[in-house]
Amino acid sequence: MNNSKTLLSIKEKIASANTEAVEKMMNSDPLLVGVDLAYTSIPNFESKMILHAGPPIEWDNMCGALKGAVIGAIIYEKWSDNVILAEKLASSGEIVFDSCHDHSTVGPMAGVISPNMPVFVIKDRTSNTTAYTNFNEGLGKALRFGAYDEEVIGKLDWMRKELFESLKTALRTLVAQNGGGLSLKSIISQALQMGDECHNRNQAGTSLFLRELTSALIESLDKRDAIAAYNFINSNNHFFLNIVLAASKCMADVSHNIEYSTLISAISRNGTAVG
Amino acid sequence: MNNSKTLLSIKEKIASANTEAVEKMMNSDPLLVGVDLAYTSIPNFESKMILHAGPPIEWDNMCGALKGAVIGAIIYEKWSDNVILAEKLASSGEIVFDSCHDHSTVGPMAGVISPNMPVFVIKDRTSNTTAYTNFNEGLGKALRFGAYDEEVIGKLDWMRKELFESLKTALRTLVAQNGGGLSLKSIISQALQMGDECHNRNQAGTSLFLRELTSALIESLDKRDAIAAYNFINSNNHFFLNIVLAASKCMADVSHNIEYSTLISAISRNGTAVG
Repeated sequence: MNNSKTLLSIKEKIASANTEAVEKMMNSDPLLVGVDLAYTSIPNFESKMILHAGPPIEWDNMCGALKGAVIGAIIYEKWSDNVILAEKLASSGEIVFDSCHDHSTVGPMAGVISPNMPVFVIKDRTSNTTAYTNFNEGLGKALRFGAYDEEVIGKLDWMRKELFESLKTALRTLVAQNGGGLSLKSIISQALQMGDECHNRNQAGTSLFLRELTSALIESLDKRDAIAAYNFINSNNHFFLNIVLAASKCMADVSHNIEYSTLISAISRNGTAVG
Repeated sequence: MNNSKTLLSIKEKIASANTEAVEKMMNSDPLLVGVDLAYTSIPNFESKMILHAGPPIEWDNMCGALKGAVIGAIIYEKWSDNVILAEKLASSGEIVFDSCHDHSTVGPMAGVISPNMPVFVIKDRTSNTTAYTNFNEGLGKALRFGAYDEEVIGKLDWMRKELFESLKTALRTLVAQNGGGLSLKSIISQALQMGDECHNRNQAGTSLFLRELTSALIESLDKRDAIAAYNFINSNNHFFLNIVLAASKCMADVSHNIEYSTLISAISRNGTAVG
């Protein structure tokens, strides 16, 4: 009798904790607050660390696409200047590999993020829970699919040297105009009503995000930089994808640390295993 | 017997003419080719003429909203400097009122267009059929609803002096980059798939139009003008509406001058009658 009472009471505690967790998720309000570099913003980022999608995995077990993205990140970081040395370094144990999700971070496909990659910073207004994500490179050859040739690294370099600086300046203006951050739920809910599912179709989300951003882009940058940043984003209908991922992670993470909650707040794969 | 044969043959001629008319409509390809002032571009525009929505109508029979818009147009044109004199002039017979549709033109609500109002020029690629429309003023007090106070006239003045000049410059760049004109069918068909019905909802259309236009806006204008034009369009989700109206008129007018065709290519009201 005592046992069944305890059981009932635990079931009730779980149900109530899960209700609270879902309510917290629904009430969260993720804001885009700015951009930063991965190692200066993402928690517990070490100087020779590479984050990746899915659960933790060591070099030997990584799939081809993830290995390719890691090689690209090593070349991008100038830890090696060629593929053979990069593979050697990756397998040496000198680089710490860790899961994006264990660092409040998310990225599409391989999800590889190294210290000097720029990231968007998304903060929940209600709890200060924060999530990070890299910039979407666009279609064609891209690091997230495991490509690492000169074209890929050249684009990543441009994204850090030019796009990152431009977005830093423009978002400072935009965030100040929007009372501390750009509300992403409003854009995402409109985009869902306009035919996006916010994963493989992001036309509406990218369009609405651009409409919020552009005035600040023109206002705060010189013409050359404004056009370059505008055209890069405008040419990639998936630009808003990464921001949606991080907004969703931010909303899901708000449900953490509720005693008795059994809610799963993240599911992610690294190409070998799902966690 | 002869009579019934003739009848059948006329029926066949009508059916075949209507098929041809619909095919021409479906194959037409309306392009935005630029902006101009009404009296320098719209066919048979007289110096003291005011166009309006719907079938031809004289001052005495006009509804309140149309009368209000006509008064506003007279003040905007500086033909009178106050409402009483404007009404007197409107009823004097000195101003020629005519239907937009008889001048290849279309405008929302009152549809009032006077000589010095800027218009978009839309041309069908397959036939050179051309249609014209005014610029959408946005929500709130607007001439198309019959409002004519200082705020309304001030905005119309700004649209002619600033927005018209900015769009003239930017569209010259955009049209050159797009091989002679911006294809509107592509934007309209995407917008329809994204939840717009392209009349009372134009969020997607205005967003996609802005994505086509913005790079040319930044490139060809100084920062102040680019921001002013961008913000005006961006603050009005109905900006694309007038362009859709003119694209649709252009597509429908392509079906004219086909012998035996009984297709109706326009239906429009002036607030008193439908034609």
